[in-house]
Amino acid sequence: MSRTGSNGRRKPPTIHDVAREAGVSRGTVSRVLNGGHYVSPAAQEAVNAAIRRTGYVVNRHARSLITGKSDSVAFLLTEPQERFFEDPNFNVLLRGCTQALAAHDIPLLLMIAGTKDERRRIARYITSGHVDGVLLVSSHSGDPVAEQLRSARVPLVACGKPLGQSSRVSYVSADDRDGAREMVRHLVRTGRRRIATVTGPLDTPGGTERLAGYREILAESGLAADERLVVSGDYSRASGTSCAELLLRRAPDLDAVFVASDLMAQGVLTALKDAGRRVPEDVAVGGFDDSPAALDTRPALTTIRQPWDRISAEMVRVLLAQIGGEETSTVTLPTELVVRDSA
Amino acid sequence: MSRTGSNGRRKPPTIHDVAREAGVSRGTVSRVLNGGHYVSPAAQEAVNAAIRRTGYVVNRHARSLITGKSDSVAFLLTEPQERFFEDPNFNVLLRGCTQALAAHDIPLLLMIAGTKDERRRIARYITSGHVDGVLLVSSHSGDPVAEQLRSARVPLVACGKPLGQSSRVSYVSADDRDGAREMVRHLVRTGRRRIATVTGPLDTPGGTERLAGYREILAESGLAADERLVVSGDYSRASGTSCAELLLRRAPDLDAVFVASDLMAQGVLTALKDAGRRVPEDVAVGGFDDSPAALDTRPALTTIRQPWDRISAEMVRVLLAQIGGEETSTVTLPTELVVRDSA
Repeated sequence: MSRTGSNGRRKPPTIHDVAREAGVSRGTVSRVLNGGHYVSPAAQEAVNAAIRRTGYVVNRHARSLITGKSDSVAFLLTEPQERFFEDPNFNVLLRGCTQALAAHDIPLLLMIAGTKDERRRIARYITSGHVDGVLLVSSHSGDPVAEQLRSARVPLVACGKPLGQSSRVSYVSADDRDGAREMVRHLVRTGRRRIATVTGPLDTPGGTERLAGYREILAESGLAADERLVVSGDYSRASGTSCAELLLRRAPDLDAVFVASDLMAQGVLTALKDAGRRVPEDVAVGGFDDSPAALDTRPALTTIRQPWDRISAEMVRVLLAQIGGEETSTVTLPTELVVRDSA
Repeated sequence: MSRTGSNGRRKPPTIHDVAREAGVSRGTVSRVLNGGHYVSPAAQEAVNAAIRRTGYVVNRHARSLITGKSDSVAFLLTEPQERFFEDPNFNVLLRGCTQALAAHDIPLLLMIAGTKDERRRIARYITSGHVDGVLLVSSHSGDPVAEQLRSARVPLVACGKPLGQSSRVSYVSADDRDGAREMVRHLVRTGRRRIATVTGPLDTPGGTERLAGYREILAESGLAADERLVVSGDYSRASGTSCAELLLRRAPDLDAVFVASDLMAQGVLTALKDAGRRVPEDVAVGGFDDSPAALDTRPALTTIRQPWDRISAEMVRVLLAQIGGEETSTVTLPTELVVRDSA
């Protein structure tokens, strides 16, 4: 059924070729392509066989004009590419979302937009209708992408609560504050009194909420608040090391550190080892995430488990509901203390 | 300019709204959107201002029907997601391709298709016209994706020579055979006589070509070929460890190992350390890639540098040429021996 154009190349088969091959009208082919309504089973089978024989590929541009759907979802990371490869949380979350979408036969497109120019290009692609919705990951506040996509009416679900956004943006999050409370309560219960913390960036919910939980338990336990015990990292391993070095200079008598991510906790353990502090004998270390990073450390890391499987499944569920026309919603899921050897 | 539909939601502005706001005809708006031909500068400015005021977003489905372009490129990895996060080569290659495309203001979409179902879904998305071309990475032979995309006439450039494909598929590759020759020649020159090799998978060009180069230099140097000195890994760190353990059992007198990737070489160094062999005193180890993995090892790895910057730039150049209508082409780039401490 292939035809050769004036430049000598084969032209792709068209809907006309399919109709001729199947011995039906073009209208019948079109009805089959759009769901098979008002088409006899025999004609439907003839059209499908003709599509296979001709190698016809549906023109989704044209179909999308009719259905308004691209049948795909973007996983949009507004972080530098380096962070994506360093932090195993992204691997876990990406796999969970891929699997949840696979159950609906929907492909996931990964987009990394760490710079302003990348965000502009990616937003242009997304708002042009090439994807049906967006799973937005690791958005600092002040990140304009969420607002831009929202105003372009692109269905959107954020991982973690977008700071400074209204409830008109859907999100799925672990209970950051309660997880931090549980970890610090564990440290107090096991006899620690000079408990420091390495927070995440304070323009992320994981930064502010986990810090708030830390402060609540110190206050409840009657332990003095001491700002020398609080430093902020950027979720990278390197920042964990430099934050712990700073803490050791400021408060050499510290006996525990609650670290707002497992990857930063790896860095904290390096700094403590270099300073000759034993873990957990001299200093207890508690992480947050229960990512694969927690199992790589010596001693194995006591941490707060984020329910990544549930988070990714809920993100996909909420997004597909929104694509189907539902309003926004937010989901918060409980965390769990995992006691290993470091605290 | 926003309108409210019967369900109470705001409807997105249309081309009609833009025309009314700008005080021009719809035809004029359409001409501005399609490149501004036959439009006065004053009208063009009025339309652009109206687009900003109304928040109008071009319907790319409709535009794509006219221009046949999505203005985007896919970076398609037909490997399991785990490999993507483990091997720093992918990070380097992805960054190079992203930067090369950025110079053309084209966004890169990352697609990971490690399973048959994922490949089917992704191929469906790509052949539906949502991307203009594909940068295909790490395709084993027998991988049907390259052939499928080729027969759907999707512009395509592979990283590395696709085995069993004709020259009708474009590719960009380092000179694998010559790189292997250079490394093994270095090992011979520095006095090694029982040189083993850990190859890549033998359905990849990096597997077969680097093995061929190894064999050529052994023959040229008058060293006996010994199949006990040849084992095949899968490019993962873990396979490097198990291959080296096997080599040590089969040929305990080996005095050098040429490893077909830096990540596998990391695993080889672990196995040699566990077996009490000193590197380079007892056993010299040479890698391939000069990836960030080579700098993480103790001792630092002597390796063959793949010119990743040039590979990614050439992949993008060839792909954009093909999108512009050029025929396929293949590019092979020279490698370089980087001598550090392990050999």
